[in-house]
Amino acid sequence: MGAALSLNIAEKGFGIAVFNRTVATTHSFYENAGDLAQKITPCDTLESLVASIRPPRAIILMVPAGDPVDQQIAALRPLLDDDDLIIDAGNANFHDTNRRVAAAEDENHPFLGIGVSGGEEGARHGPAIMGGGSEASWQRVAPILEAIAADYEGAPCATWLGEAGTGHFVKTVHNGIEYADMQMIAEIYGVMRDGLAMQPAAIAEVFTRWNDGPLQSYLIEISGEVSRAVDPETGKPLLDVILDKAGQKGTGRWTAIEAQHLGAPIPSIEAAVAARNISARLAARKIGGDIYGEPSHDAESIDLDLLERALIAGKILCYAQGFDLLKAASDSFAWNLSLPDVARVWRAGCIIRSSMLNDMASAFTDEPDTNLMFASRFVSLLMENEASLRSLVAKAAAAALPVPALSSALSYFDMMRMQRGTANMIQAQRDFFGLHSFERLDREGSFHGPWAES
Amino acid sequence: MGAALSLNIAEKGFGIAVFNRTVATTHSFYENAGDLAQKITPCDTLESLVASIRPPRAIILMVPAGDPVDQQIAALRPLLDDDDLIIDAGNANFHDTNRRVAAAEDENHPFLGIGVSGGEEGARHGPAIMGGGSEASWQRVAPILEAIAADYEGAPCATWLGEAGTGHFVKTVHNGIEYADMQMIAEIYGVMRDGLAMQPAAIAEVFTRWNDGPLQSYLIEISGEVSRAVDPETGKPLLDVILDKAGQKGTGRWTAIEAQHLGAPIPSIEAAVAARNISARLAARKIGGDIYGEPSHDAESIDLDLLERALIAGKILCYAQGFDLLKAASDSFAWNLSLPDVARVWRAGCIIRSSMLNDMASAFTDEPDTNLMFASRFVSLLMENEASLRSLVAKAAAAALPVPALSSALSYFDMMRMQRGTANMIQAQRDFFGLHSFERLDREGSFHGPWAES
Repeated sequence: MGAALSLNIAEKGFGIAVFNRTVATTHSFYENAGDLAQKITPCDTLESLVASIRPPRAIILMVPAGDPVDQQIAALRPLLDDDDLIIDAGNANFHDTNRRVAAAEDENHPFLGIGVSGGEEGARHGPAIMGGGSEASWQRVAPILEAIAADYEGAPCATWLGEAGTGHFVKTVHNGIEYADMQMIAEIYGVMRDGLAMQPAAIAEVFTRWNDGPLQSYLIEISGEVSRAVDPETGKPLLDVILDKAGQKGTGRWTAIEAQHLGAPIPSIEAAVAARNISARLAARKIGGDIYGEPSHDAESIDLDLLERALIAGKILCYAQGFDLLKAASDSFAWNLSLPDVARVWRAGCIIRSSMLNDMASAFTDEPDTNLMFASRFVSLLMENEASLRSLVAKAAAAALPVPALSSALSYFDMMRMQRGTANMIQAQRDFFGLHSFERLDREGSFHGPWAES
Repeated sequence: MGAALSLNIAEKGFGIAVFNRTVATTHSFYENAGDLAQKITPCDTLESLVASIRPPRAIILMVPAGDPVDQQIAALRPLLDDDDLIIDAGNANFHDTNRRVAAAEDENHPFLGIGVSGGEEGARHGPAIMGGGSEASWQRVAPILEAIAADYEGAPCATWLGEAGTGHFVKTVHNGIEYADMQMIAEIYGVMRDGLAMQPAAIAEVFTRWNDGPLQSYLIEISGEVSRAVDPETGKPLLDVILDKAGQKGTGRWTAIEAQHLGAPIPSIEAAVAARNISARLAARKIGGDIYGEPSHDAESIDLDLLERALIAGKILCYAQGFDLLKAASDSFAWNLSLPDVARVWRAGCIIRSSMLNDMASAFTDEPDTNLMFASRFVSLLMENEASLRSLVAKAAAAALPVPALSSALSYFDMMRMQRGTANMIQAQRDFFGLHSFERLDREGSFHGPWAES
């Protein structure tokens, strides 16, 4: 990622000095940089890196999240002038960024934490950049960051979103949404594969066709690509030789943990993380299969139109949860985070970019603090497609085709419009066994049931 | 809880000195203690409390979790002898207990963290007690704790489970399971109320009848009680005047957070916490109802037998997740936690006690490290009832009756026995956009798709 970002910066006409702790990596990077090498100064030591940059400096760290970032800051700081700016562009936990910004500012040093999304390709040719830290520090490097960022109809996808860890928090939630979006696509893939007995090539055609409709998105596009790919070794469809065990690097987990702290419901994102964790339990799943056998997947009544519509509804509801989490965080931490800005910065460059995100940017511009499922332009889309999501969840349950993220989205929808929920039962139970009290429908206060008298 | 526990201790014949920071509370407690007052020494100051106890002392703290515990320890410690034992019997976060045990042991002071479950009633007449800290410290007070604990067929439900925060961790997961068990009951209640148009009195009869069958449990029993209760003010069924907004004190959240750290899938518990969070969004739900209207709940094909069977299957799967989390924690923290011991200590006294837990204790005694859904005596129960859970989830989805915990349980079941999951799609996507690599089915190693070459 660091190499790709450096080439991107050089390509946009900025001089850049680069350093990697493995000197050979730096040299081979430089030697393979082609015409861009003229803008690049390879450095073998941190000292020469610092000496190669004209003050006031700006230095981007792209190292693994956690201790390596602190170690790199500790190594760099003594070499720098007071107003040299360190920018952490890795996937930091926002609590760490809060701490690092505070520590830097205590010593009058500037520090930015920026979330960068778009994978290798995005870093090289235009990522989405979510900025956090002081706005003044952001302004110092905004011309570079805006130049290297993805472009959405003339607007760069690089935005200062707020103080301290705000940018990294938004990037974390971006990734949480990405988990859920990917999981929903995988669920739909599973229905096509196991319920409709479709081969990967046929599945590829479906995703590619959907990419011309309301589901247009980078993730749907690449789902078509990977479904179409053939394994050079065996000649089989590549999907059919890949182990069904998902990895993760922690941002989905962080999203779930922060949502718990904030009391913000994100059941589809949690379901996606759980699905990855279950996928990794290969030995347990083998035992489960041996005991319970392979169920029959009678899914004839599911058709592709139903799947497309269900995914549209599921996707809206998953993004509604993600944006709602951002709002909860902004309220809790007094960030004054602009949801329209977030939606705009995600319109290009990042992994979850999609035509629907363009509409979300418009929706939040019109109604900045709404839950997406209440935003007028999404209400009609949900109304058109909710029945399909409902039907798919019902049929998939009956056919033993697991759709945990999609069914969590449906439950979320049904609970978020439920005038009279069922938590009165829970409150009654809690009061019965723990005297936790309950509120009443007819007047304010806190009350106990008759059992409290004994 | 502290008052109830003190009366319980006195009733079992042990002398006890008591202190509350509000002196009047101590006095009124003493004056209302009846015959038990002769075993009780009320103390107005911590100094007099300490002076009233013969060394080596054992002092139980029952204060709100968090800072109050640390403050109380800091106030007490200087008054105590080195080998006086402090016992935190509140709902501590196990990380805090780990820290407190380590800090105490650094200074050669004994410290126990014990989880106490059973609500007010349990504390008074016999709770379940989950012990953590050094085994030697536990042995010092075991005669008292075993005497006050619930009795299950002659065995006291008070057990030392492991070092440091083990007891509090087990109590936290107990509560997480409790959240899911209560949520599933609330979901079934919702289906009866909204899908079958049953009144609370009729619902009460159902729960009470189920309490004579496989679902026998304290929570089903009190669900009957609260459904039957009448509001003295209005004469209406009490359930119908209670606000549908669930509170929580954090242990469900902690369970979800620790499961995330451990990578242990507990989707039904997460769904239960999310459902409480959504229930608290009253204003949003009002907006949702105004926009989307009240759906029709066509649930005629759901009958009570189906509901009972679905709840049996859902309950097994929810406990499977909870025990699996305990095993993941034990493996990760090298606790050597005995799942049979945990199941046994939960058989009486605690909120989740049930006849099924008795069977779980037997199941784990036979197969100590299994996932409950693979334990032979639960396999047959699941096989008998899985189809009903499947049918209920399908029908509830179609009828817009949210059953998030039950449907998460079904997805968990279907994924945990799936030989060929769908995470190969996720791994392909991750490799496509981030070069994260994937494993193959046919040989070991880590690989990239053909896209990696460009």
